[in-house]
Amino acid sequence: MLRPMNYCSDCGAPVEQQIPAGDNRPRWVCTACHAIHYQNPKVVVGCIAARADRVLLCKRSIEPRYGCWTVPAGFMELGESLSEGAARETLEEACAQIDIGPMFASVDLPHIGQVHIFFTGRLCGDYSAGEESLEAALFTEREIPWDELAFASGRFALECYFRDGGRCAGGQIHTGCIRGPRQAVQAD
Amino acid sequence: MLRPMNYCSDCGAPVEQQIPAGDNRPRWVCTACHAIHYQNPKVVVGCIAARADRVLLCKRSIEPRYGCWTVPAGFMELGESLSEGAARETLEEACAQIDIGPMFASVDLPHIGQVHIFFTGRLCGDYSAGEESLEAALFTEREIPWDELAFASGRFALECYFRDGGRCAGGQIHTGCIRGPRQAVQAD
Repeated sequence: MLRPMNYCSDCGAPVEQQIPAGDNRPRWVCTACHAIHYQNPKVVVGCIAARADRVLLCKRSIEPRYGCWTVPAGFMELGESLSEGAARETLEEACAQIDIGPMFASVDLPHIGQVHIFFTGRLCGDYSAGEESLEAALFTEREIPWDELAFASGRFALECYFRDGGRCAGGQIHTGCIRGPRQAVQAD
Repeated sequence: MLRPMNYCSDCGAPVEQQIPAGDNRPRWVCTACHAIHYQNPKVVVGCIAARADRVLLCKRSIEPRYGCWTVPAGFMELGESLSEGAARETLEEACAQIDIGPMFASVDLPHIGQVHIFFTGRLCGDYSAGEESLEAALFTEREIPWDELAFASGRFALECYFRDGGRCAGGQIHTGCIRGPRQAVQAD
């Protein structure tokens, strides 16, 4: 489950897998300076940005899932909060400013070491395709290209959003887990 | 904001800070093999484990905050879900099995690149101090050593829990942000 690592990022010597004293799982440990290089899951943040009964989706211009539609989302960066990350991704992928709303859905993907966290938000003003998008567009629930969605976590967030009546209000969180490739979300 | 990195973990050559093509922020990039080493926030998971009107806290036997009390919590590991991580930390720090409940609170700490996520849970059976604890004990709201709590995020989770009536039920999430050292949580 560790991601590949050959050399110590502190001193440049080779690393090897060891279970450090007082620990209970393998880590990459430097054979020279003995630095322990912990690896942890990454967070993906996204936003269901709405205007009236429509939500904003992006058609991906990059792999994976080139040409499929996605809720604006991407890796959370150092120095930002979850909601700031979700707003930034919406700006980068759909050139859209939003009033960010509550955290709305969380999906674990333990097989790839990721957690996907979605917010709701209200679209303010214009939108257009960002660098990682071929197109950005608004869809009602019926108009959404359900068979051309890029990711199961985004599908889960959209399904929860519309099941709740398509509201931005709330604070009620929906949680689920994806246990392997090409699997759907199992709701908690 | 990048964490220190001197050498490429792929090939062992020196790295330097660069903004890669198509990116908009500095990354550690290898001067030889050009691998980009992304750094992202880490997730801490914890659990407010309850029995009737009491919650389980641990007195820390390690730094930081040696001797202060904490909600069982620690870094999420690769290969687990958020709730599995919260249950594992409760087992490791308080030797306590729990029935994990809903996600309950989320606190961003952008100044240190962390997100702290708390669950509720019901305590099943015994508990005792784990390796990182001097002591584990149950407290009612009034009994909690509020002036000896280790971390502001755990305090926020406890305050929200008792303000909601000390229930494990829900799905209502409380969110907030800590913007600097020794600061309290600003609720969203």
